[in-house]
Amino acid sequence: MRGQKKGGRVSEETRELDLLCVNTIRMLALDMIEKAHSGHPGLPLGAATCAYVLWAKFLRHNPADPSWPNRDRFILSAGHGSALLYALLHLSGYDLPLSQLQRFRQWGSKTPGHPEHGLSEGVEATTGPLGQGFAMGVGMALAEQNLALCLNKPELPIIDHYTYALVSDGDLMEGVSSEAASLAGTMKLSKLIYLYDDNHICIEGDTGLAFTENVQRRFEAYGWQVLRVEDGNDIDTLEEALLAAQHELEKPSLIMARNHIGYGSPWQDSARAHGEPLGPRALRQTRQALGWPANKAFHVPAQARRHFARLLERGRKWQQEWQRAFDNYRQKYPAQAREFRRRMQGKLPSGWEQAIPGFVPADGPLATRSASGKIMNAIAGRLPEFLGGSADLAPSTKTRLIGYGDLGFGRDCSRNIHFGVREHAMAAIVNGMALHGGLIPYAATFLVFSDYLRPALRLAALMNIHSIFIFTHDSIGLGEDGPTHQPIEHLASLRAIPNLIILRPAEANETAAAWRIALASRRPAALILARQDVPVLDATSFPIAQGVKRGAYVLCECRGKPDIILIATGSEVHPALQAQRTLAERGIEARLVSMPCWELFAEQSLRYQNEVLPPEIPRLAVEAGVSLGWERWLGKKGRVIAIDRFGASAPGEVLMRRFGFSPQNIVSQAETLLERSE
Amino acid sequence: MRGQKKGGRVSEETRELDLLCVNTIRMLALDMIEKAHSGHPGLPLGAATCAYVLWAKFLRHNPADPSWPNRDRFILSAGHGSALLYALLHLSGYDLPLSQLQRFRQWGSKTPGHPEHGLSEGVEATTGPLGQGFAMGVGMALAEQNLALCLNKPELPIIDHYTYALVSDGDLMEGVSSEAASLAGTMKLSKLIYLYDDNHICIEGDTGLAFTENVQRRFEAYGWQVLRVEDGNDIDTLEEALLAAQHELEKPSLIMARNHIGYGSPWQDSARAHGEPLGPRALRQTRQALGWPANKAFHVPAQARRHFARLLERGRKWQQEWQRAFDNYRQKYPAQAREFRRRMQGKLPSGWEQAIPGFVPADGPLATRSASGKIMNAIAGRLPEFLGGSADLAPSTKTRLIGYGDLGFGRDCSRNIHFGVREHAMAAIVNGMALHGGLIPYAATFLVFSDYLRPALRLAALMNIHSIFIFTHDSIGLGEDGPTHQPIEHLASLRAIPNLIILRPAEANETAAAWRIALASRRPAALILARQDVPVLDATSFPIAQGVKRGAYVLCECRGKPDIILIATGSEVHPALQAQRTLAERGIEARLVSMPCWELFAEQSLRYQNEVLPPEIPRLAVEAGVSLGWERWLGKKGRVIAIDRFGASAPGEVLMRRFGFSPQNIVSQAETLLERSE
Repeated sequence: MRGQKKGGRVSEETRELDLLCVNTIRMLALDMIEKAHSGHPGLPLGAATCAYVLWAKFLRHNPADPSWPNRDRFILSAGHGSALLYALLHLSGYDLPLSQLQRFRQWGSKTPGHPEHGLSEGVEATTGPLGQGFAMGVGMALAEQNLALCLNKPELPIIDHYTYALVSDGDLMEGVSSEAASLAGTMKLSKLIYLYDDNHICIEGDTGLAFTENVQRRFEAYGWQVLRVEDGNDIDTLEEALLAAQHELEKPSLIMARNHIGYGSPWQDSARAHGEPLGPRALRQTRQALGWPANKAFHVPAQARRHFARLLERGRKWQQEWQRAFDNYRQKYPAQAREFRRRMQGKLPSGWEQAIPGFVPADGPLATRSASGKIMNAIAGRLPEFLGGSADLAPSTKTRLIGYGDLGFGRDCSRNIHFGVREHAMAAIVNGMALHGGLIPYAATFLVFSDYLRPALRLAALMNIHSIFIFTHDSIGLGEDGPTHQPIEHLASLRAIPNLIILRPAEANETAAAWRIALASRRPAALILARQDVPVLDATSFPIAQGVKRGAYVLCECRGKPDIILIATGSEVHPALQAQRTLAERGIEARLVSMPCWELFAEQSLRYQNEVLPPEIPRLAVEAGVSLGWERWLGKKGRVIAIDRFGASAPGEVLMRRFGFSPQNIVSQAETLLERSE
Repeated sequence: MRGQKKGGRVSEETRELDLLCVNTIRMLALDMIEKAHSGHPGLPLGAATCAYVLWAKFLRHNPADPSWPNRDRFILSAGHGSALLYALLHLSGYDLPLSQLQRFRQWGSKTPGHPEHGLSEGVEATTGPLGQGFAMGVGMALAEQNLALCLNKPELPIIDHYTYALVSDGDLMEGVSSEAASLAGTMKLSKLIYLYDDNHICIEGDTGLAFTENVQRRFEAYGWQVLRVEDGNDIDTLEEALLAAQHELEKPSLIMARNHIGYGSPWQDSARAHGEPLGPRALRQTRQALGWPANKAFHVPAQARRHFARLLERGRKWQQEWQRAFDNYRQKYPAQAREFRRRMQGKLPSGWEQAIPGFVPADGPLATRSASGKIMNAIAGRLPEFLGGSADLAPSTKTRLIGYGDLGFGRDCSRNIHFGVREHAMAAIVNGMALHGGLIPYAATFLVFSDYLRPALRLAALMNIHSIFIFTHDSIGLGEDGPTHQPIEHLASLRAIPNLIILRPAEANETAAAWRIALASRRPAALILARQDVPVLDATSFPIAQGVKRGAYVLCECRGKPDIILIATGSEVHPALQAQRTLAERGIEARLVSMPCWELFAEQSLRYQNEVLPPEIPRLAVEAGVSLGWERWLGKKGRVIAIDRFGASAPGEVLMRRFGFSPQNIVSQAETLLERSE
């Protein structure tokens, strides 16, 4: 079926069966929404034919094994149409029984309001925030292109699949999809095929209110093939368009299908059909209009059921065929086959961490961004799945993997991605690559620009996937670029995101430990790195490797019982170290706690936490970010040296001094704190 | 000069003088960067001719009065080229002496690394984060269009100016400019004219690495006129293009000027020219190449100085002409003239707040988003400058001003903006409108999507401008839409932003008080509003109006000395009120503090703070967001009922109960807390 032009028209029976299946999807979706008293009927009614044609006639998947590595990927970028996806998953034979459809949008169900990856089998990505699915699909196609170039053998293409998505007006209006589309065109991702649910209606009314651009010309300008289907319910034309998209070998394809929101319902072609249940009366009318039995909720006609069962059988065969090819591959290339399995399972090779270099004081001073660059390059040799790039800042973020080429032009197995000045798409694409499997992708930019990619960062945390974010230039210490480039609130606002590990190492060896965690934990993680040089600490005398793992640790103990505990993160550990010495000279014993990761420290036992931060000892924290949240670690008698205003333009060391992050001010604040607490 | 096609070519002397001025700009910029040992020479060298032609031959401004309301606006969207802008400001006669240029990027100077609005005269917008300037320009042009339609008289166009910007590859790659460009096309902003510094180089190398799209076709698809200038140093062609842009009456214009990054320097046309000082040797070579005296830093040839002085004189005359027209306007339409002055000065009309309605319990239950909608509509009648819109969610955010039409199609004086599903551009456009003056603009979306617009929100706070953000659906209480739509970390992450007022009212009367603050304070503000219905409190028995102003207040006092203080915000005030009653029945006296605004409470006297939250009394806070930061208000014996994980899909009341925001759980936590603290 794939890649072949069909001869002539199909029989009338086939089309009748197709229509029956399409209406089964429509009505299942409507019934789910009606029962939940909540949901979005407009998209499932309007786009059911497109989705059905794609799933029944093109999508190579095997619902019996949702983790088949070479399956085609499908993303419902317009996640509010989740009822459509759940109907498809159920009918196709994924583990989503009717009883789950009947619990749509209810506590504990596998059918939440928007599709959630990891919760329901067959949901390739969490979607709902518009544009994210579009951009994650680009990441999946990029992953496929890269894995195919790296792992396939001429006669044995073990990775060779398409990435499809159903996208909406809203997706195309979001900037993130513009960024991703431009990059997909640049990278010639010809196996990326998107169906655009072109229905001329948005929530506020006709799309003409806000969206008059020529979508076709815009996507052609990005380097896409654009195909038009004037009637999105015309199965023949949809098939032709999908075939033409598959035949295009240079460009991604956008199939613009003119659909009708709320098709068949009394509110077809109006915004009213978008986001509310039809209600009993309109539901009755819709059933009648679509020739459906009255009063039969969650009805699946036997013919439709049988047809989907046949499709399931076909899926099993596809995977069996692939398995034979893979067995062949394994015989001929046993080491590569093992690598493939390892990578797809998300396991690291044994001994990988031996590649991580140690640093000695003689190496310094060295910015943590630079140390990170060295570590990444060392790791790259051991982890072929490790790849990524920066939003046009690689020379500053130090994230280039030297000698590994520029990925994305279909030329060879390369590993550096030039994302362009497109932070948001970068993060979403990295999410898509992580979701695809076989790769550990990273995205890099300045910490202040983490704001640009926050919606994708949140999705990484929500999906609990292994996306790694590298944020450099992490404080006013970056200097002259000034307030627009100086992160202030960013550490706090990243720490607010559930399920995200934020690591702000103090120097090169802490950076190495942070990378170990970011890679081994398989959790979504952000490394926060400084622009400015800092000394390298002696890892033989400071307990760095074990300490960083626990989030916070006593970096440098004082003699006897501490009078005060200094807590610092990142580059501020160094003035705190100096302050510790000065305080000792003045007879004040200060313990220095380095706290590169709040999240890991919070996961430690209360006993360990109390060991590091004994409750009765006053604490002074130092971090060049807002104070928000620091109260958590200050105990009853604590203070924090922070910056609760925007920065300024001046050399970094001037700013650090002016804003109080000097050893002198730490000493003076410590003394004041001790006076007060006496 | 404006709107006239020039006859024939100009004299050679004129062109020589032009070139001298262009090189003066270039060399001033280079000298600034060299002296600072920091900065971006590539853009000033490459785009100096474009900028000069625009400023010297088209831009109608009066450097002697940077606040002239009808001046043309100019934005350097590529803010890293700040040295170019400072050179232009200095030469044109703004209050920016050479001594400031010599303190480029130094502590306390008016010449920071990236242009900062409010710090240096003539800087219309803070830029640096790419794409923001592009989108703010769209907001300025939209403001101009709106004010012209609302205030001009046929013979007296008191608002009639262009909005120009210089934009870079990076600006065009950012999604926010795609969003803004599409909207500018839809809204036919023909007085928006952008010069694109098309230099084929980005930081990581040739733009071909990541940016191969056809920019011309893309912008044509958005509905723009695109003009090409094959040599960005060709003054005649630049002039022709700018005239053609002015003559276009239906579309915004993008002038693609083929420039050469680092023009005249040894690193012309290479990424190396972008972001580092040239160094003494290359500086010498560049001076030589551009025919500049060796070793003469900050040199302004007398001829160039005289030429710019003449331009300054011309600017004065322009404003005088306008003033005569305005005097005429004032004579004929004295009331409108007073309105115009009032609005441009950012003053509210006396008695405006009388429009704000009061609510009584009989009105309820009423969601704060719905109360907000009523308040906004009431205010709209008194404040003609109040306008805005939503990112395709107006029916849900309740932000439509009923009866005020749809703005942006050049038809009439309307006030509702359909931003489309473009949160980021929405916020930046609102910033642009606020910067323009004469308008109080608002932007609305769901709280969870505040992530999409965060970079623009940050700029609003940094610039300290009067942009108002309305974020509804403010907690898991929104229900079935699930984790993708449920804000969790968003309150905390907004509170982390310096200089932003965040107001989360509990009910309708608090919402009215919050709107009063948002409008009267003239500070950047965010209103956080709930989707679900809540009771209306009796404003005669609860001290709401005075309380909200102070950020937190005793909403409902107990009998005698409190045993415990319940602190709640937004919709959680209501279960806390119920808990207060239940606790009283059980003999526990609880004071209920409503805390709609942390920032305002933090600004109160310590005495007031201690009155509301006496230090010795245990506290229990309740907020359906992350706990991060709450320790600040909990005192020594406090706890918070919060949600430190992502939400779930289920009806809102189920979620509120499951996650502990029920009166029962508040009672039980209060009791536990009191047991522990005994």
